[in-house]
Amino acid sequence: MTSQATTLKGQPLDKPVLDAMLRRRMFYTPSFEIYGGVGGLYDYGPPGCALQANIVDIWRKHFVLEEDMLEVDCTALTPHDILKTSGHVDKFSDFMCKDPKNGEIMRADHFVEAVLEARLKGDKEARGEKVEEKDDPKKKKKKTKTEAVKLDDAVVQEYEEVLAKIDNYGGAELGELIKKYDLKNPATGLLPSEPVAFNLMFQTSIGPSSNLPGFLRPETAQGQFLNFAKLLEFNQSQMPFASASIGKSYRNEISPRAGLLRVREFLMAEIEHYVDPEGGKKHGRFHEVEDLELVLLDKGTQLSGKTTTKTMTIGQAVKDGVVDNETLGYFLARIHLFLQKIGVDMSKLRFRQHMANEMAHYACDCWDAELLTTTGWVECVGCADRSAYDLTVHAKKTGAPLLVRERLEQPRVIEEWQLDIDKKKFGPLFKKDAKAVETALEATTQEQREAFSKQLAEGGKISLDVPGVGDGKAEVTSDSIKIEFRKRVENTREFTPNVIEPSFGIGRILYSLIEHNFWTRGSDGSDEARGVLSFPPPVAPTKVLLVPLSSNAQFKPEVRKLSQRLRAMGISSRVDDSSASIGKRYSRNDELGTPLGITVDFQTLQDQTITLRDRDSTTQVRADEARILEAIKSLVDGSKNWAKIQEELPKFEGQEVEVAQR
Amino acid sequence: MTSQATTLKGQPLDKPVLDAMLRRRMFYTPSFEIYGGVGGLYDYGPPGCALQANIVDIWRKHFVLEEDMLEVDCTALTPHDILKTSGHVDKFSDFMCKDPKNGEIMRADHFVEAVLEARLKGDKEARGEKVEEKDDPKKKKKKTKTEAVKLDDAVVQEYEEVLAKIDNYGGAELGELIKKYDLKNPATGLLPSEPVAFNLMFQTSIGPSSNLPGFLRPETAQGQFLNFAKLLEFNQSQMPFASASIGKSYRNEISPRAGLLRVREFLMAEIEHYVDPEGGKKHGRFHEVEDLELVLLDKGTQLSGKTTTKTMTIGQAVKDGVVDNETLGYFLARIHLFLQKIGVDMSKLRFRQHMANEMAHYACDCWDAELLTTTGWVECVGCADRSAYDLTVHAKKTGAPLLVRERLEQPRVIEEWQLDIDKKKFGPLFKKDAKAVETALEATTQEQREAFSKQLAEGGKISLDVPGVGDGKAEVTSDSIKIEFRKRVENTREFTPNVIEPSFGIGRILYSLIEHNFWTRGSDGSDEARGVLSFPPPVAPTKVLLVPLSSNAQFKPEVRKLSQRLRAMGISSRVDDSSASIGKRYSRNDELGTPLGITVDFQTLQDQTITLRDRDSTTQVRADEARILEAIKSLVDGSKNWAKIQEELPKFEGQEVEVAQR
Repeated sequence: MTSQATTLKGQPLDKPVLDAMLRRRMFYTPSFEIYGGVGGLYDYGPPGCALQANIVDIWRKHFVLEEDMLEVDCTALTPHDILKTSGHVDKFSDFMCKDPKNGEIMRADHFVEAVLEARLKGDKEARGEKVEEKDDPKKKKKKTKTEAVKLDDAVVQEYEEVLAKIDNYGGAELGELIKKYDLKNPATGLLPSEPVAFNLMFQTSIGPSSNLPGFLRPETAQGQFLNFAKLLEFNQSQMPFASASIGKSYRNEISPRAGLLRVREFLMAEIEHYVDPEGGKKHGRFHEVEDLELVLLDKGTQLSGKTTTKTMTIGQAVKDGVVDNETLGYFLARIHLFLQKIGVDMSKLRFRQHMANEMAHYACDCWDAELLTTTGWVECVGCADRSAYDLTVHAKKTGAPLLVRERLEQPRVIEEWQLDIDKKKFGPLFKKDAKAVETALEATTQEQREAFSKQLAEGGKISLDVPGVGDGKAEVTSDSIKIEFRKRVENTREFTPNVIEPSFGIGRILYSLIEHNFWTRGSDGSDEARGVLSFPPPVAPTKVLLVPLSSNAQFKPEVRKLSQRLRAMGISSRVDDSSASIGKRYSRNDELGTPLGITVDFQTLQDQTITLRDRDSTTQVRADEARILEAIKSLVDGSKNWAKIQEELPKFEGQEVEVAQR
Repeated sequence: MTSQATTLKGQPLDKPVLDAMLRRRMFYTPSFEIYGGVGGLYDYGPPGCALQANIVDIWRKHFVLEEDMLEVDCTALTPHDILKTSGHVDKFSDFMCKDPKNGEIMRADHFVEAVLEARLKGDKEARGEKVEEKDDPKKKKKKTKTEAVKLDDAVVQEYEEVLAKIDNYGGAELGELIKKYDLKNPATGLLPSEPVAFNLMFQTSIGPSSNLPGFLRPETAQGQFLNFAKLLEFNQSQMPFASASIGKSYRNEISPRAGLLRVREFLMAEIEHYVDPEGGKKHGRFHEVEDLELVLLDKGTQLSGKTTTKTMTIGQAVKDGVVDNETLGYFLARIHLFLQKIGVDMSKLRFRQHMANEMAHYACDCWDAELLTTTGWVECVGCADRSAYDLTVHAKKTGAPLLVRERLEQPRVIEEWQLDIDKKKFGPLFKKDAKAVETALEATTQEQREAFSKQLAEGGKISLDVPGVGDGKAEVTSDSIKIEFRKRVENTREFTPNVIEPSFGIGRILYSLIEHNFWTRGSDGSDEARGVLSFPPPVAPTKVLLVPLSSNAQFKPEVRKLSQRLRAMGISSRVDDSSASIGKRYSRNDELGTPLGITVDFQTLQDQTITLRDRDSTTQVRADEARILEAIKSLVDGSKNWAKIQEELPKFEGQEVEVAQR
């Protein structure tokens, strides 16, 4: 696989050209730019905002409505205690190091990676080999100047091994690598400081007395977990079920890069699907997707140093154990279908499994849906098995019963060592310590009980460790307790559900989608290349452009009428009645990804016909308003394609000539 | 007007009953409740989340799409400098005071108000007068124990005057009132501390080096203002236009109260409509709304101590000067229509004008749409004229041209004192100071220029103040400059637009809407009252409940088929196949506000007919699936009402009997 990114039509993708277009058309823009901007913060302009809303709308229909998920909206402000329990306060950090001279702060792993890669590139140049951009990184790396210096073969191999395991290193190890290989900051020629952990959460304090420290959530998941018991009750205690949430999350990235791929405030859409851990995590609708083919890159392949993907049905992948269980597999397939629906180039999608060392602290398995862009493969959706981690830690911390009680159809008979305490005798015997002794007794294991039972039978008493009581020992006699091996019938089963979490970074998906749908028209001729965003109609920010031939006042009522009719049909449109030529106005809207265009001209005033233009082919048809509106409806709802419309309605060539001549 | 809040059917509204129902049905719930909760933070459960999404969806169609507004999505994280310039760092605060004994922190104005009102109430009791709850407060006041103590008539009058002006006092004045009237905290019997200003913004720091202080935005407006120049360009420089934004904002309230009315994180929908300040702020679509009658409470009426509203057309109100201009009036009317569309009880809506002293620091006029609830009149929408305040301060701070350049149809001829600088001579004369001297010259007023012109003619030179240059004076001779009174032709006009800002608190609207649509059924009989939320179908969280008669497996395929058909029609439905009786299941969904219910029973299996139930009347009709689905579609899109459906389809009485018998 090469990193040479291509457009929708296979042309080399010129990122600066695309960036300039996105800026010009205000898809997004650096926040606070007139104040100099702030790294990692972007605002969406009107087309970006509409594109985002459409992606979210399709997401909600595809996941939440299709599967009756319970959507919630929780606060981003989160008190310290919750994120302490969840492990984020201690573990949600990256390592950073600082240049001692210019004060530049860098992510330690990115720094090591960048310097070693620059050396390897320099080595290749020195050897006269063709230097290819590597296609890997989820992160966009800092450009580091290369010098053509040949390295020993053994050194090359060592560097490559380090790079393959880069996600594997902690701060101390990264520090050792910096010293061992003498990795200097090219900007100053100095070694950076020892890496230190930097927590990625934004801190604040809640309330007027500053005594409640809090954070902005780094994920929407915790709010969902804390509401688990209420959601289960809302779902009338039926399992499995899923909650879902769409909202902003915050990560104080050490060195955010330009663009939407690593930002500090971002929209997430997350699903927490709760499943019984027993019975192999089957899924009731797995059969609907089992024949779908996915492109998979499993951890075994990666650990052997390769990035070769396998294409297989998700049914086969689960059967072969490549994907652990049906529920995880079901969601991978649903993610695949969602990305297809919004218009992702499916030849630029792969599912990559995390290696053990790169997994988040809460996950026991994770697959990322990665999309290929000009900056390599970008993690856009994570699908993690969080096991029972979160519900367990919160339940333990708060005592809240975050579990499922299931009535057993067949009562379960359990034979075990059981303990009976005679509380009447027990109380006076231990007085204030009675509770502690009782708790210690209840906590004994089956093995201990078996041994105690013997001791009671033989010596009439046992000696029990009870920390904090007297000398740490309590003597319990056989007249106050009884330990017997006997049967017990259980009618209900209690369990903490496991969580399968598909988690979508909407901004990353949005940016990748733009790249996948971008191409340029006319670049083969002498003409200047004109950008086109061929979004499928459902995600396109605006569906229809309305163009009066000129600013002649006669056209206004007709345009206004069409605009109102389209609105009534629930189809978004925009009028461009600027003085630019029709061709220029269509070009502008090709850049905005508007799939359809209507022209109102002098003929319209005579015979009430209007033209309809297809963005991708620039061909046009002409018919009366009713038939054109009907055609638009069927194109937008996907029931017909442009070829079909061309069969049905007469071709029109008028203004198209003008467009072609520009 | 009495504060006795009523339900949709005019019954007394029992707030604890409603609260319990909203909690049971998980409309919203305190965030982090298993950790003890945090004041002012709430999560929306599935019905609240859907209700919110529907309100926002209607808002977007009613405002953004209807008027081609430019929607943007800006970050909540905001660097300090922006909010310093906007005035929020210095002025966006409330005064708080602290009880010296128990450490309780109170909003100073609320504290003064509560204690004085308790004394007045005690006085009334002592006089044997009937004590009525006051209907005013936007704020839900702390309940303060009253003692029946008679006050002097003069004291009563003084207290009432203080209360009328309570929004008028600053921190020092509130402190004086506390001392003057010896206002003690009833909880401890002590005077609270001197009030201090507490800024309501949540603070954080952006980036790894902690050197960029920032806040969470208290409103979405600033992000919109900072993008003004780009939005104007996106709009092809056409005026007037509006930007709009829907997003979370944050205010660190000193003492948030229970419920959604004063929270620390909330969803806002804000419009910034940019209008030319010249020409009386006319609006091109004002004629569409001018005959709409609004209920107005203007500032003059309030200043005279009354709360009598006037009902008048908005056309008349603008004509009479009650509402300042057409643009402000247009948006008040549009707000009225929006609230009507989502199902607000229009007899519980009034527009109240702010008095000068209660206006936000940026506003020059403001009207609030207030909704009457159990806690009095609640400000749900603000409609402020922010004049050119924000654009001006940001332009001044950054030098960015936040203004409109308008080509004048008639070039404007201006006669004035004009300055010509001979740069060739000027440069060598002042060397490094040339630029500063030039700037000082350019900055001279018409009066100064006239005087200088005389001096140049008479003495051949002028003496100019130039701070920072030499001794602060520069001598400029007549060979290097010329000052003449002559004509100049202006082809463009530059102006800073004024901003009309309708700003919606979605959570407050949502809560008020719930109260306005709540009523109880069966409370007149011996039966327990059952809650109903009669939301109009477009805002109802779920449109259709699907109820199989029993858990019999035969019903499942039919229910699944109906669920899929409704989804394909874009109509949200939920299945309740729990073991509860049909009546119980319908009651549960009446509480959720689901307008329609379908029952699948044994007859369905024979003749494919299903029943359709109307939530509000509990009457039912029965027909085949196609006709029932068609009826649902017309009810949900509002083209037919239930009475019409009853005329068209046969009545059914089967399960209704069961509901009545519960």
